[in-house]
Amino acid sequence: MSAKNAFYAQSGGVTAVINASACGVIETARKHPDKIGKIYAGQNGIIGALTENLIDTSLESDQDIAELRNTPSGAFGSCRYKMKSLEENLKEYERLIEVFKAHDIGYFFYNGGGDSADTCFKVSQLSEKMGYPVQAIHIPKTVDNDLPITDNCPGFGSVAKYIAVSTLEASYDVRSMAKTSTKIFVIEVMGRHAGWIAAAGGLVEDYDIPVVVLFPEVEFDQEKFLATVDAKVKKHDYCTIVVSEGTHWPDGRFLAEQGTRDDFGHAQLGGAAPVVANIIKDALGYKFHWAVADYLQRAARHLSSKSDVEQAYALGKAGVEMAIAGDNSIMPTVVRTSNNPYAWEIGKAPLSEVANVEKMMPMEYISEDGFGITAACKEYLYPLIQGEDYPDYDDNGMPKYVTMKGILVDKKLPEFEM
Amino acid sequence: MSAKNAFYAQSGGVTAVINASACGVIETARKHPDKIGKIYAGQNGIIGALTENLIDTSLESDQDIAELRNTPSGAFGSCRYKMKSLEENLKEYERLIEVFKAHDIGYFFYNGGGDSADTCFKVSQLSEKMGYPVQAIHIPKTVDNDLPITDNCPGFGSVAKYIAVSTLEASYDVRSMAKTSTKIFVIEVMGRHAGWIAAAGGLVEDYDIPVVVLFPEVEFDQEKFLATVDAKVKKHDYCTIVVSEGTHWPDGRFLAEQGTRDDFGHAQLGGAAPVVANIIKDALGYKFHWAVADYLQRAARHLSSKSDVEQAYALGKAGVEMAIAGDNSIMPTVVRTSNNPYAWEIGKAPLSEVANVEKMMPMEYISEDGFGITAACKEYLYPLIQGEDYPDYDDNGMPKYVTMKGILVDKKLPEFEM
Repeated sequence: MSAKNAFYAQSGGVTAVINASACGVIETARKHPDKIGKIYAGQNGIIGALTENLIDTSLESDQDIAELRNTPSGAFGSCRYKMKSLEENLKEYERLIEVFKAHDIGYFFYNGGGDSADTCFKVSQLSEKMGYPVQAIHIPKTVDNDLPITDNCPGFGSVAKYIAVSTLEASYDVRSMAKTSTKIFVIEVMGRHAGWIAAAGGLVEDYDIPVVVLFPEVEFDQEKFLATVDAKVKKHDYCTIVVSEGTHWPDGRFLAEQGTRDDFGHAQLGGAAPVVANIIKDALGYKFHWAVADYLQRAARHLSSKSDVEQAYALGKAGVEMAIAGDNSIMPTVVRTSNNPYAWEIGKAPLSEVANVEKMMPMEYISEDGFGITAACKEYLYPLIQGEDYPDYDDNGMPKYVTMKGILVDKKLPEFEM
Repeated sequence: MSAKNAFYAQSGGVTAVINASACGVIETARKHPDKIGKIYAGQNGIIGALTENLIDTSLESDQDIAELRNTPSGAFGSCRYKMKSLEENLKEYERLIEVFKAHDIGYFFYNGGGDSADTCFKVSQLSEKMGYPVQAIHIPKTVDNDLPITDNCPGFGSVAKYIAVSTLEASYDVRSMAKTSTKIFVIEVMGRHAGWIAAAGGLVEDYDIPVVVLFPEVEFDQEKFLATVDAKVKKHDYCTIVVSEGTHWPDGRFLAEQGTRDDFGHAQLGGAAPVVANIIKDALGYKFHWAVADYLQRAARHLSSKSDVEQAYALGKAGVEMAIAGDNSIMPTVVRTSNNPYAWEIGKAPLSEVANVEKMMPMEYISEDGFGITAACKEYLYPLIQGEDYPDYDDNGMPKYVTMKGILVDKKLPEFEM
């Protein structure tokens, strides 16, 4: 078999370490020129494949590719573009295969969350049917941590570390000020459907911080919440609240609901923190401060967890090695072999078992009162935030993050109407 | 002269490095037992002196005191409590002197911003009048960076680094997503009266980020702002906006005041960031994300600037050495001797020239269009964010921050009515 080219794309919300996976894919592929020719990256994700906007990564220097490991965001551009089902939009899938054919692409590495695992699975099915073999490998990525089978999802560990550390630091601040000023600090974190990120904020309980966590998994009970906060303030003089953007009232309305929707029709959230802060102020009169971490949390490469960076890289590398070994329609996974000390190895899962399966946070990770996390949850989380992996800084004091040249390959096909 | 005890207190909003100054004060005093006996720290700042709640720092281990250097927040507690003028509340000043007398305190180290410099100045004046000599030394601290004479104020450099780095990271994220999703990212930063912190966000312009900065020094011109943002989005496909919490309309109202009320008639609090984001969405239709950094920015010891930590420590150390050398009613300062490479030394300023003088951001630091910073501003800022100074982390992956034992000295005086 002569060397085939590869296609790599980043999908959905980016993270502090998705480029570390890209680095793992490209560096590993470069070591196997007999098996893999060029690696083309989709400009802005899968849209780059559909529109034949393919970045020729062979024109990026080894040095720049190495620096991807330390650079947050999606270096080739990502997109929020969900491919419809094969029945609804066969044309798009056929176009993908055409583009792959035109550019002699035999490997499809798709770096994303649940939706892209599904797309990746469909591509592998269709390529079989169309008689043009493409090995489709899904590289897991999502701060939502909701992919099945894998121990965790790259991107999550770094957000978890950022939120745990930031919550601790801000809590120390409030503790200093509580005597005459702020007694309540509210930090809003990502996690629309699952409280994984909010749970990370709950770790500060182990550091003597009075903390209340609001999860999307638990209906917001205003009365019980206020009583819990008040008891903590009466005991400690202050209280920290970690609120997930997905926290909702018993009738299902998000605390944060702004009335706008994104392209997938999801309600656009943001602003649960001021709502919670004002509920406390109105009922209990305590002075508050609030923060909304938003993109800062998932972009914070300056505080990435070492285990997250290592796993992101290892999964990219493993994806390529599995493809070379002949695997198709699979996702490399992280398998936890020990908690303390944390040990893990790479496994793999068939995409048929990954696509359309969402891993929720186990209810046994949430404490009985619904406002904190259990010992089992802490045992799961700590290994994911262990270790630091700092980027280099330039003489100005700013981190050295790399930008790709992003030179496109000449097009060979007619335009495609999206 | 036999050794006198010292009193140290933290005042106002705390920072990532005010404890580094405390560390400098205590470690240096411990080296001069012939001149300085015990160091008592005010529990919750100056209130601790008025109420005679004095923490005996001699009961804290050398190790714990050393770790103060790496611990954010105010380890002894701070307070927002402004002493009135001597005429209005002589009683309080007299009480301070009484407490100092009762505990044989001959040194007063006050670690704070403009208000505490004023208090410190008054204590030095009054102690002279009352015939009980107290050497009053002000150790500068404020993220607002508005103390005169000193090149900068400890605490500011670390916030500036955090905001510059976070703005860069989030901008990379938006750049990745802009094709199909978020095109506007708004980050709200502290600085009610001065745009120093917002200016730090403007540094990302040097890293190819299209950025618009909104300063409290510049009246918000909605039309001009929208045109500037739109031009940047049309050119770069996205735009980052750094908005100071003090940004205001021409009539003086803060952007953060929304003028809306909830069902109970309470004024609805929101930040400036969501207001700016919605102004853009309404006029230009671009999808946005926004973050409010709040306490995260001033507590972020995990990303402190090395020059800031070093200066905070050096100023605490210098304050003690100056006191031992006989100085009174002064503030040690940072004197910049070179920009590139950054070099500085310790100077001193009489408190009579510090008290009640606010250093504003020079208008020549703001670009002509009012939405960015000038080369002179960058030359001033970069040295302050240079270098990293990471805390240690524990096995869980959390930073090692120290908590004081905080054991109080026995009281010797009757209660004081505050």
